[in-house]
Amino acid sequence: MSERLTVEVIDITDPSDPRVDDFRDLNSVDRRPDLPALPGGAVGKALVIAEGVLVVQRMIASRFAPHALFGVDRRLEELSGDFVEGADGVPFYRASKEVMAQVIGFHLNRGVLAAARRPTMLGVADVIAGARTVAVLEGVNDHENIGSVFRNAAGLDVDAVIFGTGCADPLYRRCVRVSMGHALLVPFAKSENWPGDLELLRENGFRTVAMTPGEGSVPLREAIAPTRGGDATGTKLAFLVGAEGPGLVEHTMRQCDVRAHIPMSRGTDSLNVATAAAVAFYEALSR
Amino acid sequence: MSERLTVEVIDITDPSDPRVDDFRDLNSVDRRPDLPALPGGAVGKALVIAEGVLVVQRMIASRFAPHALFGVDRRLEELSGDFVEGADGVPFYRASKEVMAQVIGFHLNRGVLAAARRPTMLGVADVIAGARTVAVLEGVNDHENIGSVFRNAAGLDVDAVIFGTGCADPLYRRCVRVSMGHALLVPFAKSENWPGDLELLRENGFRTVAMTPGEGSVPLREAIAPTRGGDATGTKLAFLVGAEGPGLVEHTMRQCDVRAHIPMSRGTDSLNVATAAAVAFYEALSR
Repeated sequence: MSERLTVEVIDITDPSDPRVDDFRDLNSVDRRPDLPALPGGAVGKALVIAEGVLVVQRMIASRFAPHALFGVDRRLEELSGDFVEGADGVPFYRASKEVMAQVIGFHLNRGVLAAARRPTMLGVADVIAGARTVAVLEGVNDHENIGSVFRNAAGLDVDAVIFGTGCADPLYRRCVRVSMGHALLVPFAKSENWPGDLELLRENGFRTVAMTPGEGSVPLREAIAPTRGGDATGTKLAFLVGAEGPGLVEHTMRQCDVRAHIPMSRGTDSLNVATAAAVAFYEALSR
Repeated sequence: MSERLTVEVIDITDPSDPRVDDFRDLNSVDRRPDLPALPGGAVGKALVIAEGVLVVQRMIASRFAPHALFGVDRRLEELSGDFVEGADGVPFYRASKEVMAQVIGFHLNRGVLAAARRPTMLGVADVIAGARTVAVLEGVNDHENIGSVFRNAAGLDVDAVIFGTGCADPLYRRCVRVSMGHALLVPFAKSENWPGDLELLRENGFRTVAMTPGEGSVPLREAIAPTRGGDATGTKLAFLVGAEGPGLVEHTMRQCDVRAHIPMSRGTDSLNVATAAAVAFYEALSR
């Protein structure tokens, strides 16, 4: 599935070697290389960091072309089927696990990292073109939840993810890891006109479904029933989900076609946002 | 919903005070008080630790009666509706957040803990009596996944959780926290006769459904279709899920009534085990 990448192996023995600066202090709150903006507002390196063999493979197969890799020899071997070795290739900085730990600031079991610069971001119109089911997030500021939404989207045939206001960076390392690399493969866009872009979705034939346990909602299966069948118009679905706790903003829900809830036991909390999204995706896939 | 607990507030100012030993070194691999067995095989304290206001409230409402609480003044106030103050009550050890951090070994944002001794564990026959839908786990050794299964079970009307071989301790603190306390409320049992207890489930009218993306499986909705409708016999469901990666053991699946898969996109990984379980629970609830 993945393209073969031309790499050039370069050994790193000194942890202070500036060639591996793109992998330095990965857990640092104010210096990590995948930070889009630095404290104070300066522009960060805004790199995208993939970790582990599977996620690195997916990065290679994605539009996020890695410009450098960093790992132990064993992971280099595991990835050999994805590489062609050659001069002028992307550097694969090979190091011992001890040197790696000193550079990145902690011991990384996964043993390999890849770094990419962020390509031009896609727009909402780009990602919904040709899509049949999309997920729309509002106020979801937890990286693990966003990562899980991407994983579930990939598994359950969701074509794109759209971010409304208040969402965390989907390209942060932890999000990419939890998504198992699908944050790099499932097209996504940040809405620059929120919630106005809901109108764009509707104009493009999407039924907009606000997922909410609140009043005035109908059961999920009922909410999507009008999209069943082979008619090309109005069979597309956009599921909106909000953060756990606050949920979607009332003003946003008012602009949706329908409010839907997942039938649940009485007196329990709502489901985790990624789990609720998975149930919605499943229901859409089973229509 | 919760019963009112009689508590006696006792101030703790010395982090070495032995009265808070049941909350000491919570992250210690070999000393933490919720360890069932110590390294070397000695019996551990095997306590159950609840953390945070919500989970502590659920512990009070559960059959896991706390014998001690430990928290900052603000959390004591937040819990005041759950308490009656009185002599001979359960001690609420009140401390500053600094003293608390020194006792437990890290800074706990949630600010309150409760400790309970493990009551007699329930058996499989106990937890399936009266149940309509149950979850059965095999080889699930990740505490967060087990916690999420409990949370999803509570939300989606699953009556009990049964643990086959190879599962992690469902009463470990992190599991209880991720479950949002539902690990203390949803009845569970560890099978002492695995996979023989599948026969017990069948004798009690459960259709045993092995969740697997593998060959020979039918779509989930089809797999549970025979349990639809009002007939009292054979309308109960037991969903078996295995660990991510290895999945269920073939020998176990052979003893199930049917193998079921969640329709998914081609070429992606399977869903997270708790997410797959949630989809199955949802489908059962919607039948």
